[in-house]
Amino acid sequence: MNGYVVAVVGATGVVGKEMISVLDKRKFPVKKLIPLASERSAGATVEFKGNFIDVEVLNNNSFDGVDFALFSAGGSISELFAPHAVESGAIVIDNTSHFRMDPTVPLIVPEVNAHALTTHKGIIANPNCSTAQMVLILKPIHETVGIERIVVSTYQSVSGAGKDAINELEVQSRANLSGANYDPKVFQYPIAFNVIPQIDKFLDNGYTKEEWKMIEETKKILGDDSIHVTATSVRVPVFVGHSESINIQTKNKISADKVKALLKNAPGVTLKDDPTLGQYPTPRDVVGEDNVYVGRIREDVSIPNGIELWCVGDNLRKGAALNAVQIAETLIS
Amino acid sequence: MNGYVVAVVGATGVVGKEMISVLDKRKFPVKKLIPLASERSAGATVEFKGNFIDVEVLNNNSFDGVDFALFSAGGSISELFAPHAVESGAIVIDNTSHFRMDPTVPLIVPEVNAHALTTHKGIIANPNCSTAQMVLILKPIHETVGIERIVVSTYQSVSGAGKDAINELEVQSRANLSGANYDPKVFQYPIAFNVIPQIDKFLDNGYTKEEWKMIEETKKILGDDSIHVTATSVRVPVFVGHSESINIQTKNKISADKVKALLKNAPGVTLKDDPTLGQYPTPRDVVGEDNVYVGRIREDVSIPNGIELWCVGDNLRKGAALNAVQIAETLIS
Repeated sequence: MNGYVVAVVGATGVVGKEMISVLDKRKFPVKKLIPLASERSAGATVEFKGNFIDVEVLNNNSFDGVDFALFSAGGSISELFAPHAVESGAIVIDNTSHFRMDPTVPLIVPEVNAHALTTHKGIIANPNCSTAQMVLILKPIHETVGIERIVVSTYQSVSGAGKDAINELEVQSRANLSGANYDPKVFQYPIAFNVIPQIDKFLDNGYTKEEWKMIEETKKILGDDSIHVTATSVRVPVFVGHSESINIQTKNKISADKVKALLKNAPGVTLKDDPTLGQYPTPRDVVGEDNVYVGRIREDVSIPNGIELWCVGDNLRKGAALNAVQIAETLIS
Repeated sequence: MNGYVVAVVGATGVVGKEMISVLDKRKFPVKKLIPLASERSAGATVEFKGNFIDVEVLNNNSFDGVDFALFSAGGSISELFAPHAVESGAIVIDNTSHFRMDPTVPLIVPEVNAHALTTHKGIIANPNCSTAQMVLILKPIHETVGIERIVVSTYQSVSGAGKDAINELEVQSRANLSGANYDPKVFQYPIAFNVIPQIDKFLDNGYTKEEWKMIEETKKILGDDSIHVTATSVRVPVFVGHSESINIQTKNKISADKVKALLKNAPGVTLKDDPTLGQYPTPRDVVGEDNVYVGRIREDVSIPNGIELWCVGDNLRKGAALNAVQIAETLIS
């Protein structure tokens, strides 16, 4: 049987499960799927193409004979096990932040910088979810008129923080609607009927690590360190789907109509933008969608060369699982 | 008995009720309270200082003997009845957008531009909720180093859209948690576990009216048309409390520490900003609070003179009822 042996590390997590689902849906040529997880998941199974496959406990020998190893089990697991996978001959596609800014590791969104794949030495990094969907939108604008500066504020769903976070939003919402409290465990503050302007830890400069990822990864993926980026990352009580309010200062003037025309034809992007019909994307519209949706495109009245827009993506798809599988597809094509 | 006759137009609405509550809490010298509403509220009562007062149906003669008329029943009601109130000798404090940009009507946030009150001709406008909380934060920064440009993205609660909107979030959340649908009636799209990047109608330039209010009212209140403002207004599934991610480009360089020091001493503002302790404001913290809270203050890495910050206010208080009562307090002091 032709095809590839694919290992998924973190197979029982939200993103791991989505990776397995996306491999199936996109008919990636999988000869054998090896779901890997920690001992906590011992005895679990995952469903793939109608079969239930036992989850194996991750160890140094897990990657013998593996062609592609998709990692989504936290930075420390990638740090420990990705080198073993590479030694075993696997190509690692890592969804964690661990290797992203390593200059020897390409950071890839296939529609944007597939060309950078050629330099890989066994490990390829998958960007942060918020960054992946933003660069899809920025790429055609940057190519056409050049981007000077980005000011982005995010509205990120709880699924980006994993299955315990999804559960916390559900249980806490239910409790609050009954007039009861439910103390936060995953998040720093209650997330039900609230918004939390902190994702990941704080850095010394006052930004969070999540914000810093958007700042650094955007430059690396677009291959242009001269782009100035600032970000505010905020968690909102949405289960799936990240939204972003993006202010773009361009080097040369571009009209809103021209941006709409560019994005209508951009790969991986769906334009949903008709104010007269009340058309723009919301997170609930994009759950399960591969494409990133964009709307609210308008010329910024505060500067001569500015564009305001709003984009929404399924953070488990383009922001994670889909992009990882697309990287593997690009490598075998 | 000393004091003033105070009429509240829209007394059974979310903001009207909050006005009556704030008049009581702040011990405004009310000789007589006259709650006014449409015929739909006939037979209703409101509680004030422990007494239940019958709501009267609004008509042209409602303002005989009234000293202060606080309007919060929609722009068309203000347009129709505010002139009658002024003719009757009342001072109108209008919470709707109807008169805000009228050059003969002062638009007031007492901590920011109380001096402009002297020019009033019977009608004083109360700003948009998102603008009121933002200008409190901007004022000391503008005075100190000058503000060049603002890029703001909001996270606005449903209470800004009235009591039917509050009910919709509650009922829809409950339905969704039971696996059921609940079609939106007040909002354009489902608001439960979603975010909606539209508040108020669209203008021809692609901005919404809510965004345009923030752009125009900010300049009028700060008394400086040279400030450049752009805004994206977004509804989030929060009951009470508006949050704002504000990017400020200043004319002269200011450090984050200096901004913190300024805001620590700013009237109407509470600084809650300690990343090492995970301290920053969220909407659930500020419900029922008069002050606007600010945190996440940091120097913007994308420009030489930039500040990023996050502010949260109870939109029914500073954004509406409290500010209206503070205007009346300023007039009688």
